[in-house]
Amino acid sequence: MGEQNVLGGRASTIDVVIAAASLGDFAAAAERVKDHVLRSPLIPFTAAGEKAIRLKAENLQPLGSFKIRAALNVLSGLSDEALANGVATASAGNFAQGLTLAARLRGIHVTVHVPESAAANKRAAITALGGSVVVHSFDDWWRILVGRETGRNDGIFIHPVSEPGVIIGNGTIGLELAEDWAELDTIVVPLGGGGLVTGIASALRAKGHPARIIACEIATAAPLTAARAAGAPVQVDRRPSFVDGIGSTRVLDEMWPLLERLVDDVIVVSVEQAEEAVRALATSNHLVVEGAGAVALAASLSERCRGKNVAAVLSGGNIDPGVFCEIVQRPA
Amino acid sequence: MGEQNVLGGRASTIDVVIAAASLGDFAAAAERVKDHVLRSPLIPFTAAGEKAIRLKAENLQPLGSFKIRAALNVLSGLSDEALANGVATASAGNFAQGLTLAARLRGIHVTVHVPESAAANKRAAITALGGSVVVHSFDDWWRILVGRETGRNDGIFIHPVSEPGVIIGNGTIGLELAEDWAELDTIVVPLGGGGLVTGIASALRAKGHPARIIACEIATAAPLTAARAAGAPVQVDRRPSFVDGIGSTRVLDEMWPLLERLVDDVIVVSVEQAEEAVRALATSNHLVVEGAGAVALAASLSERCRGKNVAAVLSGGNIDPGVFCEIVQRPA
Repeated sequence: MGEQNVLGGRASTIDVVIAAASLGDFAAAAERVKDHVLRSPLIPFTAAGEKAIRLKAENLQPLGSFKIRAALNVLSGLSDEALANGVATASAGNFAQGLTLAARLRGIHVTVHVPESAAANKRAAITALGGSVVVHSFDDWWRILVGRETGRNDGIFIHPVSEPGVIIGNGTIGLELAEDWAELDTIVVPLGGGGLVTGIASALRAKGHPARIIACEIATAAPLTAARAAGAPVQVDRRPSFVDGIGSTRVLDEMWPLLERLVDDVIVVSVEQAEEAVRALATSNHLVVEGAGAVALAASLSERCRGKNVAAVLSGGNIDPGVFCEIVQRPA
Repeated sequence: MGEQNVLGGRASTIDVVIAAASLGDFAAAAERVKDHVLRSPLIPFTAAGEKAIRLKAENLQPLGSFKIRAALNVLSGLSDEALANGVATASAGNFAQGLTLAARLRGIHVTVHVPESAAANKRAAITALGGSVVVHSFDDWWRILVGRETGRNDGIFIHPVSEPGVIIGNGTIGLELAEDWAELDTIVVPLGGGGLVTGIASALRAKGHPARIIACEIATAAPLTAARAAGAPVQVDRRPSFVDGIGSTRVLDEMWPLLERLVDDVIVVSVEQAEEAVRALATSNHLVVEGAGAVALAASLSERCRGKNVAAVLSGGNIDPGVFCEIVQRPA
């Protein structure tokens, strides 16, 4: 930590960098990414009761997740000279694919460092998009993620979460939400590394929008809930579940000040609630949504979410077809 | 046929009524339905090759199909006085649900006449929305559909296809397509009764837009292909398949002049091609699409579709979860 990041700030000061971001910074990001990003629809959740819930369907983005916004925005902030050696990242999932596609559009090379636990189909997807994959033990991989040093001459390191260009790119979702729903009062966002919720919250704050920002977690691993209780990041247990896009074992230290400042509440949902949300989204709204995205709907439906006009951010749709069908076909 | 329809034209002259519709008529319909209709996204088909294909995702509409547009538009053209006795229709599927929802929003009663072959879950959906269901033998039901006479005092009869307000309501999709994609040159639309393809085509012609209009059919029942070959509607065989939203046994006589004038080509796809499209839409684009909608993608991908910028209209998402999962999980 504390390494130089791509926009010149130090990682430990990312809170300061993001707090200083203006509405113009977010608007510029929206302009930079718009040719390759879907303005995702905000779809009424048809099974909602008295509370109006709308679904920000980021599962419909290219490659099936919001990550393409961040990846495109980060690269657009770097000169061809800076990118001459390519870029590298440490990611096991959607961000790596987004960065690889963004790099291909820019004509540069990507090296993706993955833990040996990364699914074979995710590695294959990166290779198919033209990226190189380097496999590490989980501990070595985690050191790269935290230290931002790959030990190779593989170009500029792009952190998948605590990178100003990533957070501001994610914030373009916040601008769209504010523009597309005048009565919006609450936004529910899945918490992975925290880059999505802080990006959306920062954009709304830059706009002077009063919407309440709620992060949501899955009961099998809820590090933000634990950090809020302890007043600082702490290690938590993690049980595996079909919800694989969120739920790390600890909030990243450099993300904590941002999360503490920008998140108004955290809602934890059960695996059963997340499964029910996957089923409802498929049958009522005809959307294929991965576990993390379904958690946002489940949290929006919970009593603890007291907003009247609630946007649930469906972060992605990359769920194994077998897992999806097992959930959808199970009797409710 | 030849009965009075709700907008005062005679059914046999619907071609004349629609040919006279101005761009203003379609724009007024768009304005009337906008509070309860999703401006459906136009999503790049991520697995496309050289041809750019975009998906008009009408499966994301309330109740899972484009029919809500037509139903809302028809009712908005009628006075409270005219609607005092409620409305009736003859439909086994999505239109009945759309009309029932539109009627509920307007506070009036709906009677839906269905053939005894109509699926139990579709009847239940109508009842759940507050409509009444009357079951007939297939022959009696067909007589109602063609003759527009239910034999009951159940209000104004709304034909699900050959009704000016229905066709103009469907045309709002055409306006959105023209506005959302400047380079659009071809539109591929599933052919059920013909109200969708003629609505979209009419709106584009009213706008002076040159896009090529391609209807698509499933090989198990292709009445428009047969009518074009014969120069008039003829009876065709129909084998059952999972594609249940299109593929009747004959083009309606009153729709033939419209179809003959407005449709530039027809593409027939196999059940296997439709299944492959269902699978691709689920895995590449995270959309649950019913057979009829998938036929539009399959036709867009075929060699016979020679457009460079092709919009495939995904008409609906109402597919049985078991059928959907069986197709999605089958090895390609």
